[in-house]
Amino acid sequence: MAVQEAGGGRLRTEWYKENKMAGSVFGEQFRITTWGESHGRAVGVTVDGCPAGLPLCDEDVQIYLDRRKPGQSRFTTARQEEDRVEILSGIFEGRTTGTPISMLVWNKDQRSKDYSGIMDVYRPGHADLGYDAKYGFRDYRGGGRSSARETTARVAAGAVACRLLGQYGITVTAYTRSIGPVTISQEHFDLAERDRNRLYMPDEEAAVRAQAFLEEMLQETDSAGGVVECVIQGVPAGVGEPVFDKLDACLARAVMSIGAVKGFEIGDGFAAALSRGSENNDAFSRDKSGKLYKKTNHSGGILGGISDGSDIVLRAAFKPTPSIAKEQETVNSNGENVKIRIQGRHDPIVVPRAVVVVEAMAALTVADLLLRNRGSRV
Amino acid sequence: MAVQEAGGGRLRTEWYKENKMAGSVFGEQFRITTWGESHGRAVGVTVDGCPAGLPLCDEDVQIYLDRRKPGQSRFTTARQEEDRVEILSGIFEGRTTGTPISMLVWNKDQRSKDYSGIMDVYRPGHADLGYDAKYGFRDYRGGGRSSARETTARVAAGAVACRLLGQYGITVTAYTRSIGPVTISQEHFDLAERDRNRLYMPDEEAAVRAQAFLEEMLQETDSAGGVVECVIQGVPAGVGEPVFDKLDACLARAVMSIGAVKGFEIGDGFAAALSRGSENNDAFSRDKSGKLYKKTNHSGGILGGISDGSDIVLRAAFKPTPSIAKEQETVNSNGENVKIRIQGRHDPIVVPRAVVVVEAMAALTVADLLLRNRGSRV
Amino acid sequence: MAVQEAGGGRLRTEWYKENKMAGSVFGEQFRITTWGESHGRAVGVTVDGCPAGLPLCDEDVQIYLDRRKPGQSRFTTARQEEDRVEILSGIFEGRTTGTPISMLVWNKDQRSKDYSGIMDVYRPGHADLGYDAKYGFRDYRGGGRSSARETTARVAAGAVACRLLGQYGITVTAYTRSIGPVTISQEHFDLAERDRNRLYMPDEEAAVRAQAFLEEMLQETDSAGGVVECVIQGVPAGVGEPVFDKLDACLARAVMSIGAVKGFEIGDGFAAALSRGSENNDAFSRDKSGKLYKKTNHSGGILGGISDGSDIVLRAAFKPTPSIAKEQETVNSNGENVKIRIQGRHDPIVVPRAVVVVEAMAALTVADLLLRNRGSRV
Amino acid sequence: MAVQEAGGGRLRTEWYKENKMAGSVFGEQFRITTWGESHGRAVGVTVDGCPAGLPLCDEDVQIYLDRRKPGQSRFTTARQEEDRVEILSGIFEGRTTGTPISMLVWNKDQRSKDYSGIMDVYRPGHADLGYDAKYGFRDYRGGGRSSARETTARVAAGAVACRLLGQYGITVTAYTRSIGPVTISQEHFDLAERDRNRLYMPDEEAAVRAQAFLEEMLQETDSAGGVVECVIQGVPAGVGEPVFDKLDACLARAVMSIGAVKGFEIGDGFAAALSRGSENNDAFSRDKSGKLYKKTNHSGGILGGISDGSDIVLRAAFKPTPSIAKEQETVNSNGENVKIRIQGRHDPIVVPRAVVVVEAMAALTVADLLLRNRGSRV
Repeated sequence: MAVQEAGGGRLRTEWYKENKMAGSVFGEQFRITTWGESHGRAVGVTVDGCPAGLPLCDEDVQIYLDRRKPGQSRFTTARQEEDRVEILSGIFEGRTTGTPISMLVWNKDQRSKDYSGIMDVYRPGHADLGYDAKYGFRDYRGGGRSSARETTARVAAGAVACRLLGQYGITVTAYTRSIGPVTISQEHFDLAERDRNRLYMPDEEAAVRAQAFLEEMLQETDSAGGVVECVIQGVPAGVGEPVFDKLDACLARAVMSIGAVKGFEIGDGFAAALSRGSENNDAFSRDKSGKLYKKTNHSGGILGGISDGSDIVLRAAFKPTPSIAKEQETVNSNGENVKIRIQGRHDPIVVPRAVVVVEAMAALTVADLLLRNRGSRV
Repeated sequence: MAVQEAGGGRLRTEWYKENKMAGSVFGEQFRITTWGESHGRAVGVTVDGCPAGLPLCDEDVQIYLDRRKPGQSRFTTARQEEDRVEILSGIFEGRTTGTPISMLVWNKDQRSKDYSGIMDVYRPGHADLGYDAKYGFRDYRGGGRSSARETTARVAAGAVACRLLGQYGITVTAYTRSIGPVTISQEHFDLAERDRNRLYMPDEEAAVRAQAFLEEMLQETDSAGGVVECVIQGVPAGVGEPVFDKLDACLARAVMSIGAVKGFEIGDGFAAALSRGSENNDAFSRDKSGKLYKKTNHSGGILGGISDGSDIVLRAAFKPTPSIAKEQETVNSNGENVKIRIQGRHDPIVVPRAVVVVEAMAALTVADLLLRNRGSRV
Repeated sequence: MAVQEAGGGRLRTEWYKENKMAGSVFGEQFRITTWGESHGRAVGVTVDGCPAGLPLCDEDVQIYLDRRKPGQSRFTTARQEEDRVEILSGIFEGRTTGTPISMLVWNKDQRSKDYSGIMDVYRPGHADLGYDAKYGFRDYRGGGRSSARETTARVAAGAVACRLLGQYGITVTAYTRSIGPVTISQEHFDLAERDRNRLYMPDEEAAVRAQAFLEEMLQETDSAGGVVECVIQGVPAGVGEPVFDKLDACLARAVMSIGAVKGFEIGDGFAAALSRGSENNDAFSRDKSGKLYKKTNHSGGILGGISDGSDIVLRAAFKPTPSIAKEQETVNSNGENVKIRIQGRHDPIVVPRAVVVVEAMAALTVADLLLRNRGSRV
Repeated sequence: MAVQEAGGGRLRTEWYKENKMAGSVFGEQFRITTWGESHGRAVGVTVDGCPAGLPLCDEDVQIYLDRRKPGQSRFTTARQEEDRVEILSGIFEGRTTGTPISMLVWNKDQRSKDYSGIMDVYRPGHADLGYDAKYGFRDYRGGGRSSARETTARVAAGAVACRLLGQYGITVTAYTRSIGPVTISQEHFDLAERDRNRLYMPDEEAAVRAQAFLEEMLQETDSAGGVVECVIQGVPAGVGEPVFDKLDACLARAVMSIGAVKGFEIGDGFAAALSRGSENNDAFSRDKSGKLYKKTNHSGGILGGISDGSDIVLRAAFKPTPSIAKEQETVNSNGENVKIRIQGRHDPIVVPRAVVVVEAMAALTVADLLLRNRGSRV
């Protein structure tokens, strides 16, 4: 009997030069796997580990997808995607059965040619160079898997997580905190306003100023960044694992995995570095009825990686959209220095559409750690 | 043959009320498992997945442990821990064999009684309440597993990761960027100075001012926060996975898993939210010899979750030490409102000792993603 | 700020009584997640980690699905499923891109009523009792997720794995070794015959006798078991991880995860327990050209959990189909002793349709360990 | 700022030719990581995920280690290992705290020179060829990590699992079923006898015959195989995950990961392939008190991958010890055909010492799935 000796060239064949993309899985107990490219047939996600008995229908997911869909204002891209979700498994008589939930959204509008001018060029602020270095090639058609369209699957899964959290009285609410220099004020804060303006700002006055600022950016063929804030209410004390899988560590990874996020804070965040222990410590107290409360919430709801029972408050800093029509210097894959102007439909700001993506990632994280926490006591 | 029916009370016995602590594992290919309590016999770590052939001895690890050990100045705790590491497996003739590397550090100085006064009280700024909520009990002796002593194991493993990265010409360098209101200046930046002062500040003048500020905190029985900055040099373009396991997302989780960290930034971080696309995009260019470079590094070395070949720059914001001698209001586990002063040996600032922990977590993250990246092309 | 204390009933709400089904994921680097129920809209699978550059189209997968589809003979069920696979992502210009490959097969023929008679009864030889004990309910419509229809997704993923292995010159070939008392003989072995008879037996004479035996079983309203043998050729020496993830251990888990498998062997298997070291050891030798070979292959191609470069030979024992029309004693969920006859379309033998499932599981295992092995040397 | 381009030789340095050994981790919720080499300083294991509150001391583990230690009879090796276990973490006041449990056993007796004669030769029946193909080198000193000494760590962890299972009334009992041609008989079965003879056979008469057979093997410088049987009692119905992580699939992987195991069966195993549905199906019934029972247990306690509440019965076939003093043909690493006689201390049979290892692996599997099952209902 012949023995196949290792090597012999067979393990290093030419076709095998390009390689696999790992890391499309998120979560341990409430685990999702996303798939699909910007210009493929569909994008989708499989949710493994959602408990049985949860009421769920397509429409529950659709309302979240509608919040991230483009074409809602002149500051978001004009593509006419319908983005109708279809749930293909895991539901019986309107409730989850505990088996994997498979969902997909068909791709409709796939104009590849818009992107053909940039197929050889490394766009500044984009991952083009990194992809070529990593894979030796890249799908230049709308970014392929690195397209923001990938977040469709995150939002669909996040909708299921929100629905699950709702059963425990937990809500996840994100909104635009700032756009460029314009920040919402505590005194004008009005959550209901968030869904009335296209910038998802819960402050009508700030939204007007932010829109004016974005008009200016459009005229200057430039773009702006901003900050999304997210408040998670109703999480009981005790959620989060105490060493590497701290609740804030997991939230940080989840939110930083959204494209364009460059910073993450919990509670007072960077301001805490300037504070003193006597100011930053939140005093616990019990009111006359014996109910426990914290006099302040500098911690943002998490102490030692474990929820402390108060509101969890996090912020994510988004950089300006890198795709701008203004002329930029760069290089192409032939080693030449070139100048480019990025044409096509690009938002001058990613923040408004990212609000629901932050909600989704926060909800997926809390749902996973909440289920993992079920083993912490019987 | 009798059938054991489920339930029957047997799965819910009384002894089983308290439960397991998950999450002591970090990394997928370069994977570490830490163990040990502050007042147990030892703390340690097993590194699974370190490639074979790496020169490694106890001393290589010891020099990292020496940097985190207490008792080095009046601003760090006075305990006389020796913290000698012993490598128990995975080394043959001075090199790694590819098998698991087990390391431990025996605990020497275990004065439990110092902590007995606070066993019933929920210390503000600590995880006491969360632990009780989660596990129904907590080891009040020095924090048990939630003690900063747990980071000993992280640093030992991080030393191995640094040694591995060194083989690729990758260096990981952290330092104190700010303490309270005192920040290092670019003009006085001198890395060699970092190891000359006990605050690990690479700016002699700032270190003097920071020491004066900490004296003030000590007098006021208060504490201070600060920022650690970390620069990773030599990482080739192409490291990081493009969806959920982005390099910056993984770094964020790793660094936020260190106790007391409340914020994380990459590159310009929160400042990027105030920038414009035309400013924030880093132009690529090639010099006359054809060498690729970036004219700026606002991205902090990562684009789309993948390293872009320039220096990776990250910052972590640490809150002030929560253990202060100043009187504080809180509650105890009997539901009473009480006042406490936390006695014992506590640093007025955690930042200097945390510098090497940030290095360790950054190195562990890069080592893991570097090995995972080996599958991206052959 | 109010603190949400743990418990308070909220973590134990009534709707949450039924729970999630874990374990729909297989593999670490070549990782698949299956989804879908027997009577849902579709069944499918997402393959994460398939390297880029592999030529792949729907038809490559379809040929494998056709081999498991029912209705091919009077010994397999009469349902008219079409089982056309659709690949929804991960392919560009006829080749894999390295991104997740999502595939689905729509369900067509869903006659639920056939199963309604048994909804309260624990069928002997089935998992009904276990499901009720575990989940508190079960989808009685064709078994839901425990239906053999779940293997459709395994076979689709296995087809991709086979295609990948083919690039390395590795082939995976399973066939029916025995049905009831009828076993193929080495002297009449003819692989080409396998696909000519509906029992997938590579021995024409044995197939005739096996058919006669199955006719007899049908007449007696009884069922039969059998053995599937699988040969994997072309695996180079060195594949498999040496402690818990031995190649044979992983193959055992993969094959035993197919419903109805009760035994697994590698090489001489149970016969090796009766052998002597001097007989069972395979002598290595080199022929005159220097080519290494083994004089025998009692090991079945695996030594110490690592492939030894010779053919890998494994066998799986399948129990008789538990669904029989013969009257059986059992209990119902009301605690009564009852008698049942299981009506409906049931094969008197599962072995022929399981042949391609064994191939799929073996291929998925080898593909995963082959990719994991790429880190073993550079 | 210079950009580090990928490649440039740095990722493929010479020192990096040899590589890492993956797969030293077993279990998902009750997760162990083993470490240590035959001739290193120690062997050990970290158990992550053991629930808190379990009474545990060194002696509880020691009694299991004593059962696998060599030097107990003339059929087991004569080395004088003491094998005293030390628990280093995770215990407080005699009970587990839920944190990682680290255990080690120091190596005492390390006579390397016994093995030096075989450092270039590929021993038949051993993994030498596979290791060289995989890693490019191997630790020839007693097998390094592939030594049976690695099972010390499995047994220590298994002892903790057994202790945990004991709290639920679950017992795991393995014994020698056969040695060469000598099989225990049901009529003489006496479990108490198991621990009275050194072959761990629960049948005094069979043990006498087996000893005579082994004397014969020693005289002929040959070796024998055998079968270990394991019975797990008290597992409630409902344990095991229904798709890939079936209870029997997980047991198969666990047991097949023990060196020298070539076959695995559950219940009737291979005999089921010869049975009929009407015989093989176990009838459920309720006795007059309403207690559920099965009239037979052909299933071996598992149906559809889920425990059915009756005794779980499994068998593992061990091949004969490959190390024999009889002359054998083989090749060396220089490509020459050579003859060898393996000297040194080798058991003519591995089965007796493997009995406790089978118990350990079975207990680890059931403990893990039992904890995973806790999420299946609240």
